[in-house]
Amino acid sequence: MTQSDVRTALQLRSLVKSSGDLEVSLTRVPVPTPSANEVLIRVEAAPINPSDLGLLFAGADMAQACQRGSPEQPLVTARVPDAALKSMAARFDVSMPVGNEGAGVVVEAGPAAAAQALLGKTVAALGGAMYSQYRCVPHDQCLALPVGATPADGASSFVNPLTALGMVETMRGEGHTALVHTAAASNLGQMLNRICIKDGIALVNIVRNQSQAGLLQALGAVHVCDSNSPTFMQDLIEALMRSGATIAFDAIGGGKLAGQILTCMEAALLKKATQYSRYGSPVHKQVYIYGALGQGPIELNRNYGMAWGVGGWLVTPFLQKLGTAGTQRLKERVASELKTTFASHYAGELSLVEALALERIAVYGKAATGKKYLINPNKGV
Amino acid sequence: MTQSDVRTALQLRSLVKSSGDLEVSLTRVPVPTPSANEVLIRVEAAPINPSDLGLLFAGADMAQACQRGSPEQPLVTARVPDAALKSMAARFDVSMPVGNEGAGVVVEAGPAAAAQALLGKTVAALGGAMYSQYRCVPHDQCLALPVGATPADGASSFVNPLTALGMVETMRGEGHTALVHTAAASNLGQMLNRICIKDGIALVNIVRNQSQAGLLQALGAVHVCDSNSPTFMQDLIEALMRSGATIAFDAIGGGKLAGQILTCMEAALLKKATQYSRYGSPVHKQVYIYGALGQGPIELNRNYGMAWGVGGWLVTPFLQKLGTAGTQRLKERVASELKTTFASHYAGELSLVEALALERIAVYGKAATGKKYLINPNKGV
Repeated sequence: MTQSDVRTALQLRSLVKSSGDLEVSLTRVPVPTPSANEVLIRVEAAPINPSDLGLLFAGADMAQACQRGSPEQPLVTARVPDAALKSMAARFDVSMPVGNEGAGVVVEAGPAAAAQALLGKTVAALGGAMYSQYRCVPHDQCLALPVGATPADGASSFVNPLTALGMVETMRGEGHTALVHTAAASNLGQMLNRICIKDGIALVNIVRNQSQAGLLQALGAVHVCDSNSPTFMQDLIEALMRSGATIAFDAIGGGKLAGQILTCMEAALLKKATQYSRYGSPVHKQVYIYGALGQGPIELNRNYGMAWGVGGWLVTPFLQKLGTAGTQRLKERVASELKTTFASHYAGELSLVEALALERIAVYGKAATGKKYLINPNKGV
Repeated sequence: MTQSDVRTALQLRSLVKSSGDLEVSLTRVPVPTPSANEVLIRVEAAPINPSDLGLLFAGADMAQACQRGSPEQPLVTARVPDAALKSMAARFDVSMPVGNEGAGVVVEAGPAAAAQALLGKTVAALGGAMYSQYRCVPHDQCLALPVGATPADGASSFVNPLTALGMVETMRGEGHTALVHTAAASNLGQMLNRICIKDGIALVNIVRNQSQAGLLQALGAVHVCDSNSPTFMQDLIEALMRSGATIAFDAIGGGKLAGQILTCMEAALLKKATQYSRYGSPVHKQVYIYGALGQGPIELNRNYGMAWGVGGWLVTPFLQKLGTAGTQRLKERVASELKTTFASHYAGELSLVEALALERIAVYGKAATGKKYLINPNKGV
């Protein structure tokens, strides 16, 4: 391929207009030519993570979405609620590519030796715009997958693995010895469960029903609490006393759960306390909210003294703080345990066209446990 | 005085029974004899800080309180609500002395030279149990007041000054350049306003009415926002854009204010942003809650991206983190600016008996602006 070839390929785009209209479409874009240090990946597997759904659908009510366009290039439209629209001014009328991570085969490479070394290899990359048939990225953003690993095996090599490892690193870095995780039956939760079992860290898994509890117990989880059980608060206090967890990572956010976790942490600490402090236990209790599965405001009733914090947590700023060497250490662990600790499971694989089918959106758009899909932009091409 | 003297003196006590009954009383306790490194202070001024009210009244409804006992040793009783009672198991049936800080004259001293050096001097101390006629403390917990300063001048040398300085230190230590303060017309707020003017730090003062706003403006405050104004949110965004404040210290806690501050910080940051980020502004926005003037849960609606935190903040753990040298530096500043930057104002002075009068409790128990009182345990003795 030379500069004069004007090959094009499909790319999924999300556009929010200032009017509040969302348009999700497939666009033909030129296939880029890699520069010296770049490689061109033919993307064959990119997961639909909850973090992708935010950019893709912009909080719009997809139950009311419409589809038009052609069978080959469908266009999905929906309305973004006014409340969500306010914070999106900076993306108004910008057609944005989507897909944080994915994997595929390197089909072209720039002249740099490190780029050439990847030619023909199956690699994973974190770089955005992965819901594209072809994606050009710097070679040092690629993770070469072990021999025998397929793009589907490596599609989720970054977001979930680095998030789960980042939680454990944050726990240690902030002086805690055990942790709590909500929405714990998720792909991410199962991965965190495997990391904690392997590393000997006590993990308190909070799930929303008994079938999720059974799933995690079958995977070796020791502390599992069902937030819909009538004994949830007692169960959680008991698990916190046994585990000693004083930090939690919460995917839900909205509602009372974050506050309930702090309340139970404080109760577990006070049961061990020997002295009254008017300000509650002096041990710091922390809940980091990293997702937004629950809508509505967070309600904190503050019956847990003064040594507490609630805040947002994201893997990217965490990795920036951790630095290049620390991040590299985590990535190497992911590569070496790709098919064990960091294995992901999917409900199925969608082509780009299938990803825009309303009946598919109705399923994967809910980010429900067991309903994670892969997009294969080159499926059926 | 020798060991065989069994002199007694009055001390104010607060007792919570497991039944939920609160008893606030005056008890006769032996006057202690200072050991080698201690001094005996005749306490003449001890402020009633919001932090004292928590221990004193244990969240009881003082509007329903009763008084009995004798005129010289009154006993005030009230009921602690069940919800508040849960966290107090460790203080059940323990008669607790009250009064974080105060000042008075050193009337006896242990043989150590540093203790003897304080004999006859007017000193301030932070040590609890200051609502006592006599209080024995190690000499190194005393702050010798400048010549000419009265006990009333030095009564509030620790809690408010170190809290206000601690806020500024925390702001700097966490990488912020300006700050927000709520309940900003309080004694503490006025002190913080003087520190910020002196040190050239932009301070956004949030008050609850126009008269408080006028008070602060008359004291030179530049950014003052009234949370009951219909234009509060716009005013706050404007003040945050001008000041660049990304950290707040909130005395109120309950309700929506903490979330509103984060919302306005994010809006101010996004107005300056040049690029869309699906996770909101990457600049960390922090609200520390250091008081509980507002009852009810904190409501966080999370329309401020992912780079945010809300948490409890207390001066004592902050000073522990800061260390001895840092704390000493702050204390020296307090002593040298005691009558200027760190001057406190009081609505009046109460004897121990007056402090237990229901009509007095009705006034000072509200911790309202301009209604701060001093207790002088030796008044009228």
